[in-house]
Amino acid sequence: MALLGVGYIGGSVALAARRAGIALRIVGYDPDPKALEVALMRGVLDVAVATAAEAATEADLVLLAGPVGSLDALVLAIAPVLQASTLIIDVGSVKRLLVEHTGARLLKGQLVGCHPMAGAEFVGVAAADGTIFNGRLCYLCPSAGASSAAILAVEDFWKGLGSSTLVIDPGLHDRLMAAQSHLPHMAAFALAAALADEIPFLEAQGSTPTTSLRDTTRIAASSPTVWRDIFLANATELLPLIQRFVSIVEALESAIVARDPMALQAILAQAQASRRRLVKE
Amino acid sequence: MALLGVGYIGGSVALAARRAGIALRIVGYDPDPKALEVALMRGVLDVAVATAAEAATEADLVLLAGPVGSLDALVLAIAPVLQASTLIIDVGSVKRLLVEHTGARLLKGQLVGCHPMAGAEFVGVAAADGTIFNGRLCYLCPSAGASSAAILAVEDFWKGLGSSTLVIDPGLHDRLMAAQSHLPHMAAFALAAALADEIPFLEAQGSTPTTSLRDTTRIAASSPTVWRDIFLANATELLPLIQRFVSIVEALESAIVARDPMALQAILAQAQASRRRLVKE
Repeated sequence: MALLGVGYIGGSVALAARRAGIALRIVGYDPDPKALEVALMRGVLDVAVATAAEAATEADLVLLAGPVGSLDALVLAIAPVLQASTLIIDVGSVKRLLVEHTGARLLKGQLVGCHPMAGAEFVGVAAADGTIFNGRLCYLCPSAGASSAAILAVEDFWKGLGSSTLVIDPGLHDRLMAAQSHLPHMAAFALAAALADEIPFLEAQGSTPTTSLRDTTRIAASSPTVWRDIFLANATELLPLIQRFVSIVEALESAIVARDPMALQAILAQAQASRRRLVKE
Repeated sequence: MALLGVGYIGGSVALAARRAGIALRIVGYDPDPKALEVALMRGVLDVAVATAAEAATEADLVLLAGPVGSLDALVLAIAPVLQASTLIIDVGSVKRLLVEHTGARLLKGQLVGCHPMAGAEFVGVAAADGTIFNGRLCYLCPSAGASSAAILAVEDFWKGLGSSTLVIDPGLHDRLMAAQSHLPHMAAFALAAALADEIPFLEAQGSTPTTSLRDTTRIAASSPTVWRDIFLANATELLPLIQRFVSIVEALESAIVARDPMALQAILAQAQASRRRLVKE
């Protein structure tokens, strides 16, 4: 197995695949030598190499696990040296860009895009955890021309890690994720950033974070690089949701400025009803 | 003890006070007869009465526990019948309005404003839970003229419920809460509302909520009435934070529209750093 991009998610897949006996030898590439060093020390990798092509050339399975914005360059680097039998998967949070464009053009039927519904706000291979895929769903987006044998092999891979799988159209996947994950991340980052100026005041008061603040900003601890790439790659689906979000915040603000309890309550009641349908408990 | 406003927090205080042996007889008033019925059935109240004045007239301790916007009317209703020895506390999330205005004018030194750092998105006395104050902090805002004996008695009350206490200026309290709780709630409500139009699509796809979505919208399940009142009562502290929040969301949006990875990453990195200072883990 070749791991291209050695961070939290890629490292976690590698640890899980090794534990499951699926990956016997893992060769890794990352532009950051420190990530490779940590990965070797933690037993995530058997070997670290200096280029993506070198890692991929003899692999049975290539895992593209860099930030979404780095995947095109990785594909360009490995395409010339790939064996025809090599299977290629990724773990990116946006699927159309890779599966329908670069991947479709250069990797033909060898690519089955993947998105495991696992992970957290942790950053870097030091936090990699081979148990996070257990009991989780992994979305699969085969590229045009992928054989059923290739799809089956990728399904087996994730099942070996304890995940269930679901094949989905890349465009539907990206729309789902814009709502389920990308807008929530955008809101959490904006919330944390909006409070930056208040931190000296909060610290001077010895104030400890409320559960509300912890929960609403947890995912703002996520990697800026990873999320920069996701927001840009899924701009088409995300931007209309951001506009809707801004218009609601502005409606709340207007109702507060106008001291209009009816208008305010109407928006909050709609929000509460929406939350109860989004998360049925 | 008189409980004026029989909901999740007031009911929880009553249950906790009864369990601790602090409140021997609890008389309740609520404009909603169903809340009184549930409270009697659950043993939150010993007696339900038809007016706030009736509940308060012979009480040693009056707990104002309606939504923040209902407290002025409750104070007006009970002020004429209160005994001079009666202690009055509230559990509102905004303190200046009550402690420095109506309460100061009509309740003089008898009012010690309280805000327990406990609770959740639950709504109504059916969800009341007498254990939620254990190990938590309760902010105290004595009104001008409150005797040290009155403050000590209120400290003892919360200590009896397992809480620690901290006396704080009402204005500082309201600024703290705008950052720690009110802006996070506003963002969560707006996020849930912004996703309302996507719910039919998400349901059609059989999509289950991500942990990100669960955590960022959890508090949007809170009571619209309670939060309408909090946002209006703390408008002075909250509005500048909302404006800051909107400007950051718009900056994120602009960076995505402009496909500007540097600008986007700069905002996300600032957000990540802010989160790490807000919640040290």
